[in-house]
Amino acid sequence: MNKITILIHCTDRSNIIASITSFIANKGGNIVYVDQYVDREQNIFFMRLESEFVSEDFSTEDFKLMFKTDLADTFEMKWRMYSSEKKPKMALFISKYDHCLYDILGRYNSGELNLEIPFIISNHTDLKPIADSFNIPFYHIPVTKATKQEAEDKQLALLQEHNIDFIVLARYMQIISDKLISNYSNKIINIHHSFLPAFVGAKPYHSAYKRGVKIIGATSHYVTEELDAGPIIEQDVTRVSHAHKITDLITKGRDLEKVVLANAIKLHANRKVMVHNNKTIIFT
Amino acid sequence: MNKITILIHCTDRSNIIASITSFIANKGGNIVYVDQYVDREQNIFFMRLESEFVSEDFSTEDFKLMFKTDLADTFEMKWRMYSSEKKPKMALFISKYDHCLYDILGRYNSGELNLEIPFIISNHTDLKPIADSFNIPFYHIPVTKATKQEAEDKQLALLQEHNIDFIVLARYMQIISDKLISNYSNKIINIHHSFLPAFVGAKPYHSAYKRGVKIIGATSHYVTEELDAGPIIEQDVTRVSHAHKITDLITKGRDLEKVVLANAIKLHANRKVMVHNNKTIIFT
Amino acid sequence: MNKITILIHCTDRSNIIASITSFIANKGGNIVYVDQYVDREQNIFFMRLESEFVSEDFSTEDFKLMFKTDLADTFEMKWRMYSSEKKPKMALFISKYDHCLYDILGRYNSGELNLEIPFIISNHTDLKPIADSFNIPFYHIPVTKATKQEAEDKQLALLQEHNIDFIVLARYMQIISDKLISNYSNKIINIHHSFLPAFVGAKPYHSAYKRGVKIIGATSHYVTEELDAGPIIEQDVTRVSHAHKITDLITKGRDLEKVVLANAIKLHANRKVMVHNNKTIIFT
Amino acid sequence: MNKITILIHCTDRSNIIASITSFIANKGGNIVYVDQYVDREQNIFFMRLESEFVSEDFSTEDFKLMFKTDLADTFEMKWRMYSSEKKPKMALFISKYDHCLYDILGRYNSGELNLEIPFIISNHTDLKPIADSFNIPFYHIPVTKATKQEAEDKQLALLQEHNIDFIVLARYMQIISDKLISNYSNKIINIHHSFLPAFVGAKPYHSAYKRGVKIIGATSHYVTEELDAGPIIEQDVTRVSHAHKITDLITKGRDLEKVVLANAIKLHANRKVMVHNNKTIIFT
Repeated sequence: MNKITILIHCTDRSNIIASITSFIANKGGNIVYVDQYVDREQNIFFMRLESEFVSEDFSTEDFKLMFKTDLADTFEMKWRMYSSEKKPKMALFISKYDHCLYDILGRYNSGELNLEIPFIISNHTDLKPIADSFNIPFYHIPVTKATKQEAEDKQLALLQEHNIDFIVLARYMQIISDKLISNYSNKIINIHHSFLPAFVGAKPYHSAYKRGVKIIGATSHYVTEELDAGPIIEQDVTRVSHAHKITDLITKGRDLEKVVLANAIKLHANRKVMVHNNKTIIFT
Repeated sequence: MNKITILIHCTDRSNIIASITSFIANKGGNIVYVDQYVDREQNIFFMRLESEFVSEDFSTEDFKLMFKTDLADTFEMKWRMYSSEKKPKMALFISKYDHCLYDILGRYNSGELNLEIPFIISNHTDLKPIADSFNIPFYHIPVTKATKQEAEDKQLALLQEHNIDFIVLARYMQIISDKLISNYSNKIINIHHSFLPAFVGAKPYHSAYKRGVKIIGATSHYVTEELDAGPIIEQDVTRVSHAHKITDLITKGRDLEKVVLANAIKLHANRKVMVHNNKTIIFT
Repeated sequence: MNKITILIHCTDRSNIIASITSFIANKGGNIVYVDQYVDREQNIFFMRLESEFVSEDFSTEDFKLMFKTDLADTFEMKWRMYSSEKKPKMALFISKYDHCLYDILGRYNSGELNLEIPFIISNHTDLKPIADSFNIPFYHIPVTKATKQEAEDKQLALLQEHNIDFIVLARYMQIISDKLISNYSNKIINIHHSFLPAFVGAKPYHSAYKRGVKIIGATSHYVTEELDAGPIIEQDVTRVSHAHKITDLITKGRDLEKVVLANAIKLHANRKVMVHNNKTIIFT
Repeated sequence: MNKITILIHCTDRSNIIASITSFIANKGGNIVYVDQYVDREQNIFFMRLESEFVSEDFSTEDFKLMFKTDLADTFEMKWRMYSSEKKPKMALFISKYDHCLYDILGRYNSGELNLEIPFIISNHTDLKPIADSFNIPFYHIPVTKATKQEAEDKQLALLQEHNIDFIVLARYMQIISDKLISNYSNKIINIHHSFLPAFVGAKPYHSAYKRGVKIIGATSHYVTEELDAGPIIEQDVTRVSHAHKITDLITKGRDLEKVVLANAIKLHANRKVMVHNNKTIIFT
């Protein structure tokens, strides 16, 4: 049996839901999940649909072609189609902080994540032993001002060689170049250690401490050219008090970062996220 | 323009989603919202659908008939259909606590609630001035052991006379008889001041204090014959500490009760709740 | 019996806790509550203490004088002392939104708030009926560009005439002048409808919608000359999704605003808040 | 410099706070932290106090003796005293679930936990490689009906040999015998995967699913003879919906279990927990 996930967006029109579901049914598909959202302000229709095809003759490529010519072109849809048998490939970029790394690899190991991790890239070697203990290939690509361009070329080569689908910056602590961003548009997930848009940029826990907030947060978002301003995938918060020092905020914040990043990874890997106008639509 | 909301559940089958959406489209309806859920354990399909019909010839009654004969009977569906122009009628049952009453009437006044409140019933007269200040008819129906049967007959007569769609027990503090429950099955909403199933029955804040929990909650549920055991619509919680006395729990809990009950009312009034096997499916 | 609450802050020193508690004991006081906090970065000591004096000879004024000369001057303390028999007087400033008003007056009515509300000031007459139904004097002081100065003089006269201790802006929607702020420094409580410091200024729900945040918040803070930048007393948040329109954010936000403002009022009225360096220390 | 933490409880009396703080000051101690709580219902006084002694002549043993004879005996105090230089020793009991183990060892490695882990005990060998990778001695003590008594004797011998201060059951999945409990009264911390007192006993996620709750939780508590009924140290919750299957509850619950258990461990290791009447007083 083939299981296909389709993500669609286009201008909203009469009959669009019935047209799509009828098309699938006519091609022998049984729709097992459908969710939709209409942005009424801009009149845009979004849909996520899962369909099963039991026929032995079913060909994903043929179906894709028919979907395009018979349906998508008519409605001028932007769409993506995924076969459930192909797990997405995720590259992990890390630096020196280990909490998100342990968390992701622990989940990976226990089968919680529906994805493959072909390799880890780091600009330092500190965390190589962790990668080793989980048997994930580890590439050390140092980044300095002088070598930044060269480092990125190496990263890009590795990403392309392994057919990487998306990148996770697990506290990577380096600015990503526009070239990498444009190659992986809405496919680079970052974890920022504040409740964005509060405390953009460096040292957000220090800023939160200084402002005297009573709640701190973490935000996972897609990386865009503007720093910490990309589409937000997931956020969470926790309560703090005047008695928490900056180090306490950092410790409490780590627990947020881990869970928020893991949730964002799961949403993306399960193809539940669409992006429009720098905002995400999350189908849960 | 007519706007119709349909709630459906039945045994899951191939093509059911496409069949429903095509049917609607063929009758001239434009589907503006669809959400579905399949209970895989029991193989039951649930759907909530909103459709707009622009034709001047459209008749809700005719459509209902065709829906039944052409679609619902075939799939052996259980279904309900609502016209958006008809607001549901809600009866409020209260006793002596005023916090939920103020909260509901404040929301009602500000236009936040998509419903009508034809009257309030209370077994005491204490809160009549509040009903008066919001211009809602107030019926005092005292309840004693001796008069319980008679009181319920009066309640039932009022409910039927005003074509009440659902009942909200806003801290009514009386056990509802099986007769009333069977007449308004899954249409009587209660607010219980604990995180059910913990602390069923009377004085849950006292029990929570005694057990030394670090979090207290409130639960809104449909009333069934078994006390505090009906399908849960909404729950919320708040953190407490050893330093909170029982009176503190009661005060903090009131804020939970208000918001949890208001959310349950909104979900029910907007026809977003389905009930199956003593559990709710909430389409948001 | 006299019950006294004392708030102290000064440079931290050896023996300061023992010195204070011994002083109280020597004057016949039984300490029933003590909490303290030291800002180690700046070496500042903060304490909140409640003490009971059973002697019939006890005079608050005499005790205050001894406290000053024998203890406070030695340690160069900044301090405040309150007798529990005197409830603080709170003035409510409102405009056209009624949700915080209903909420505060409902709590006031039920005895939840340890304070007096001598009057309500509004720049509009829309909410006068609510004030009337709760029997609170209502002063209509219109504010236009031309009359702003005059209006503030009227406000100030009323505040002083009634010996108002603190002011609550319950969605008052007007910028407070520096003159009023300096007269009631750290005594004017505002509710801002965002998770500060995100979305300072007007229309924060619109900004939150535009940014696509997954969580919205509300913040209660003391008013300072810089807009929405004063010491934060209380914050809370709630989860939202892409499907929430701006009106949904406003409706959900109202529930936050009510609870956050009520909590801030209770903390202030119970003398549990100290302010230092534009941050609050909250003794709970 | 010596830093001492003292935990005290006794019948509440006049002057008790001043008596304790004066005593400390007279012995040359500078109190750097004090917090207290009075259970007014039962008239019991609780205090947590940290004091620094700079004198080179200071002897913890001498101070302890004086504290006992000059202060504690007079007020009939129950008390414990800890020197900050001695980290508590924690034994980890595990079975086959790895998520809490990874979480605790990750925190231990990063220096977040103020304690020592001399060894790990498990009734299975599955997780030995994790213990090895963190260089913690691992003892495999199988438990069967026939060998239960013998296994416990081995456990007890190991605990005593290493002067273990407290035990953490990180999803150990075995009933602890009364003998072990009485030897480590209020020193065995368990993590239960529900919001107690809801869903006591086995398979709480299954019960939560069946009941249709909208929020699930986790609870860390001290182990007592009655199953899942000991004093609660920490609880947390997360929101779920009808669409979450039991496996989803288990996955979401794991994130709760990790954080709730870690927080309980930190509170206990930092001597911030007192127990009375099967409830905890938590000084934060």
